[in-house]
Amino acid sequence: MLYPQSFDVIVVGGGHAGTEAALASARMGCKTLLLTHNIETLGQMSCNPSIGGIGKGHLVKEVDALGGAMAIATDEAGIQFKILNGSKGPAVRATRAQADRVLYKAAIRQRLENQPNLTIFQQAVDDLMIEGDRVTGAVTQVGIRFTARAVVLTAGTFLDGRIHVGLNNYQAGRAGDPPAISLSARLKELKLPQARLKTGTPPRLDGRTIDFSKCEEQPGDLDPVPVFSFMGNAAMHPRQVSCWVTHTNARTHEIIRSGFDRSPMFTGKIEGVGPRYCPSVEDKVNRFADKESHQIFLEPEGLTTNEYYPNGISTSLPFDIQYELVRSMAGLENAHILRPGYAIEYDYFDPRSLKASFETKSIAGLFFAGQINGTTGYEEAAAQGLFAGLNAALLCRDEAAWLPRRDEAYLGVLVDDLISKGVTEPYRMFTSRAEFRLQLREDNADMRLTETGRKLGLIDDARWAAFSRKQDAVSRETERLRSIWVSPRNLADAESERVLGKAIDHEYNLADLLRRPGVSYAALMSLDEGKFADADVSPAALGELFDPVVEQLEIAAKYSGYIERQKGEVERSAHYENLRLPADLDYLSIPALSIEIRQKLDKQRPETLGLASRISGVTPAAISLLLVHLKKRRAAGFSPAVQTEDVPAA
Amino acid sequence: MLYPQSFDVIVVGGGHAGTEAALASARMGCKTLLLTHNIETLGQMSCNPSIGGIGKGHLVKEVDALGGAMAIATDEAGIQFKILNGSKGPAVRATRAQADRVLYKAAIRQRLENQPNLTIFQQAVDDLMIEGDRVTGAVTQVGIRFTARAVVLTAGTFLDGRIHVGLNNYQAGRAGDPPAISLSARLKELKLPQARLKTGTPPRLDGRTIDFSKCEEQPGDLDPVPVFSFMGNAAMHPRQVSCWVTHTNARTHEIIRSGFDRSPMFTGKIEGVGPRYCPSVEDKVNRFADKESHQIFLEPEGLTTNEYYPNGISTSLPFDIQYELVRSMAGLENAHILRPGYAIEYDYFDPRSLKASFETKSIAGLFFAGQINGTTGYEEAAAQGLFAGLNAALLCRDEAAWLPRRDEAYLGVLVDDLISKGVTEPYRMFTSRAEFRLQLREDNADMRLTETGRKLGLIDDARWAAFSRKQDAVSRETERLRSIWVSPRNLADAESERVLGKAIDHEYNLADLLRRPGVSYAALMSLDEGKFADADVSPAALGELFDPVVEQLEIAAKYSGYIERQKGEVERSAHYENLRLPADLDYLSIPALSIEIRQKLDKQRPETLGLASRISGVTPAAISLLLVHLKKRRAAGFSPAVQTEDVPAA
Repeated sequence: MLYPQSFDVIVVGGGHAGTEAALASARMGCKTLLLTHNIETLGQMSCNPSIGGIGKGHLVKEVDALGGAMAIATDEAGIQFKILNGSKGPAVRATRAQADRVLYKAAIRQRLENQPNLTIFQQAVDDLMIEGDRVTGAVTQVGIRFTARAVVLTAGTFLDGRIHVGLNNYQAGRAGDPPAISLSARLKELKLPQARLKTGTPPRLDGRTIDFSKCEEQPGDLDPVPVFSFMGNAAMHPRQVSCWVTHTNARTHEIIRSGFDRSPMFTGKIEGVGPRYCPSVEDKVNRFADKESHQIFLEPEGLTTNEYYPNGISTSLPFDIQYELVRSMAGLENAHILRPGYAIEYDYFDPRSLKASFETKSIAGLFFAGQINGTTGYEEAAAQGLFAGLNAALLCRDEAAWLPRRDEAYLGVLVDDLISKGVTEPYRMFTSRAEFRLQLREDNADMRLTETGRKLGLIDDARWAAFSRKQDAVSRETERLRSIWVSPRNLADAESERVLGKAIDHEYNLADLLRRPGVSYAALMSLDEGKFADADVSPAALGELFDPVVEQLEIAAKYSGYIERQKGEVERSAHYENLRLPADLDYLSIPALSIEIRQKLDKQRPETLGLASRISGVTPAAISLLLVHLKKRRAAGFSPAVQTEDVPAA
Repeated sequence: MLYPQSFDVIVVGGGHAGTEAALASARMGCKTLLLTHNIETLGQMSCNPSIGGIGKGHLVKEVDALGGAMAIATDEAGIQFKILNGSKGPAVRATRAQADRVLYKAAIRQRLENQPNLTIFQQAVDDLMIEGDRVTGAVTQVGIRFTARAVVLTAGTFLDGRIHVGLNNYQAGRAGDPPAISLSARLKELKLPQARLKTGTPPRLDGRTIDFSKCEEQPGDLDPVPVFSFMGNAAMHPRQVSCWVTHTNARTHEIIRSGFDRSPMFTGKIEGVGPRYCPSVEDKVNRFADKESHQIFLEPEGLTTNEYYPNGISTSLPFDIQYELVRSMAGLENAHILRPGYAIEYDYFDPRSLKASFETKSIAGLFFAGQINGTTGYEEAAAQGLFAGLNAALLCRDEAAWLPRRDEAYLGVLVDDLISKGVTEPYRMFTSRAEFRLQLREDNADMRLTETGRKLGLIDDARWAAFSRKQDAVSRETERLRSIWVSPRNLADAESERVLGKAIDHEYNLADLLRRPGVSYAALMSLDEGKFADADVSPAALGELFDPVVEQLEIAAKYSGYIERQKGEVERSAHYENLRLPADLDYLSIPALSIEIRQKLDKQRPETLGLASRISGVTPAAISLLLVHLKKRRAAGFSPAVQTEDVPAA
């Protein structure tokens, strides 16, 4: 049957990528259809019950700054919030939250169900409709044909999914869900460059059988409780709870090793490559054989369940090994496993076959987002979903794609990395992937993106009003600070010492003073001259916006120098694109590089620094370090190999 | 792997049967394991979002009286409650509730997760462990072997499940869930008598696209809001909402008929027989061709969703027909279908191969409960689950099975009907199936069963205390009413007329007076003599228990005569077991019988009244009516056929 109404955009899949894609397209006014094999699993967190973290939290804030659902849903569902790296610079500070699975799913489903222009239909998709080199729709399991101008495919781990537990395996899209076999076969017919990846999840534990007195408690940040969305507030959060920590030990590692001969990874049953940055526990024990213990976080799965997620023991070892390894840890001596850990293998497609908009190069109108592009992580999926959804909408409007630059957003880094470097293992975001990371902060994601989002049609009036108010307050207060001058004449030495730590010697405006380390905005405001002359920028006038406004003022003042300098460095690094690397370079002994990057470079031995920079996982930071090493090496008297360009002296 | 701990009872399946079975076994102190293919779907309402109704509500109250979860979960999740047949006699009065699916699932899961002695494990079951003629455990999809003394199989529609929409079909256990193929094959190897049944569900609608102004509103009972559990109260209920009613029309029926040639039922694609009492809309239009309209209830699926369940249009017609038929109805002109309706075919096993305890006759320790026994309905499943679970627990204790009699519980009727009559179509409970229905009321389910439940170990202390208090109050107050005498001497004529409608002529005790129609307990208490002499039986002393106590006193007084008479009738009917039925009897023209029963009798032409009474769907009431017809027929001069016994004169 041909469905009577036609759509602008069809989104296939209702996970983190699919929901953001569908919401974005619908927010932009496109008639959007979300096809899911099961409405009950919309917004399901298939793996860990948490959102955010370093690099990932940055993506979530960007999705939020473009009007997406993930951050605000987390605010409604989050049962523990933390600011990671809180004592470090603002660029690497990141928000992370534990979420109640039931509440998270409810928050997402509620948004999907009530989104204007968005229609939901439950049925697995078995086929795509293709005319010539253009997609025209999707066909469901019982033959319902839905037409659209664009199709966004977010198939997660479902394409030809196969679950492994030890040497046993069976077809599934996720534990308890059927796989997408027909669609996988159909996509293979289209000759898109396809391969297999693997991911995994740990066994889940019954909290009633955990002895928490033997674990360390890990409370969240409680004063204040962090908030994820620029439109969120702490009053949205449900009750806050603690996580717990236990550790693997020698006995655990021994048990794990005893299962290696029945590991589907080590015996070659699994062909797909797994996520290096979210390795299985057997991978960790194997690769870091001399490490005696790994930290295992026991994360509550929600307020209404006893289930715990033991973060750190993802595994596809046989169940008897899972059983023993869990019980070898302190506090888990009697822990009951509610769901076994498993690995899942699935199809992904080489993202280098995508245009910069995530439209496939070979089939017009067909977009891919999420794990199908070789990534891992809810946040990476959500960001891609939003990106593909908005570009599908732009395609329907016959407008040019929106392509955020690498210095504009982690989303730009993510997309550029994927389409230019491809992946050899599931791709995860890190701050180290962003060469412009000082300016790509969580705190300014809205300042970087919300205006663009508004132009694209992604931002509703309420968010736009709040954003404009904040932006306005920041710029007016910046002006005001610049216009207020203090000098030895109007600032008493005692007052200057109180606020600035020493007397001032000549005239400064408050903006200049704010750049000084240790001088806070609040302190400046305690000066007679600084006091909220402009009533529009005060806690009373701005309410919840006041703290974010002050944060922007302080960061802009204190870090603008570093940010400028970073830009220069990035430009200089780009200059070394063609620098030839010595053929005899002993990468394994470069101490500044991580073991992982040393191994990668050693294995691939790139000819130039540019090629090295495009190896998956080799970060811009690593390239800088490599450059420093080369300079030192030359200084130490090693003769450089043939070079197209000289290594400059250090 | 052999799982290190052994269990007393393993329950396979986490639907309504499985959850009650697991909870019952665990309450009785047995070490119980619940195996489910997906923890997220525990307590899922696969079809309509409602619990109860006539016959079904009776079962729910009995499950509750034995400590089960269904009634109290409904109290926590119910968004509309009604007493059906409220104006009729107490025997046919029944409670029915719409439930919020999310809240219902949460209420069930919370009970399962926190039940002592109950362990949950997520993994599909592929095989049973059998030694000789005894079950010893179950084997999961990845080969984990769990041993137990008894296994309760509650496979619902999953065994070799196949979903049909028009002439398309695919394997599935339920929309979105994988089927149980391996287990089905394994059970077939065991040569248990197996066949196929079919059930169905309607398309689900997006409430945003329904024009409710064209539908009739159907509010629930609001003053007071009914309560399902004997341990429940109205304060547990979430917000109450309305249902809505629309109707099929001539155009709807025309559309439906136009799809007959692509109906999987009418074209023979579906072999399994469907539920006569919950027919698909195409079945209704086909069988009752002269009926111009059917009522369709639009039932809200919950407080946090826009989804509506259109009760009355279950269908497996092709999706294009579903689309048109929905839109042909008033208020649904633009209704969007969120999930297509479908039929599902699945394996069931002839319940005549079960012992009276629901243990299979051929494999010791193996119990079946729910749809696997050929029934339909959440309530029938829950009742069987509780029954099989408690008998599995008794088996483990080496105690005799508990077998409720037909005059003791609907559960007794259900079990006896299934094991003695078997099924030819999905079995549903009706009050007409119970020959002792005047005593099998919702209101006295606790009085009938809770004491037994306590002896079995199913009743916790809180429920037992509440029950004892109620029972105590009833018996003490009954005694008191019997001991208080009024006579023309101590009751003024005016007062007698006020309370009894006329003056009394001699001495009566209050219990005698309460038997009179129109004389309420409250009216008697307004007599000086009646006033709460016993402070223990008063609203102040009994709180929420007061109304149920008064209800018991009134019903006992007013209906005891009828109940005694019914017993006599039932005994007399049993006497006609061997009455031979005339070979030429024109069943189709017996007006007192329902069309359905006329057709069944006409088709099967049973030789004796006893055989007629054992035809599935032929109720005790129908047998009485048939007897009356035969008496009239003889009186009218028809010559009786050869009889083993004479039809007595009317």
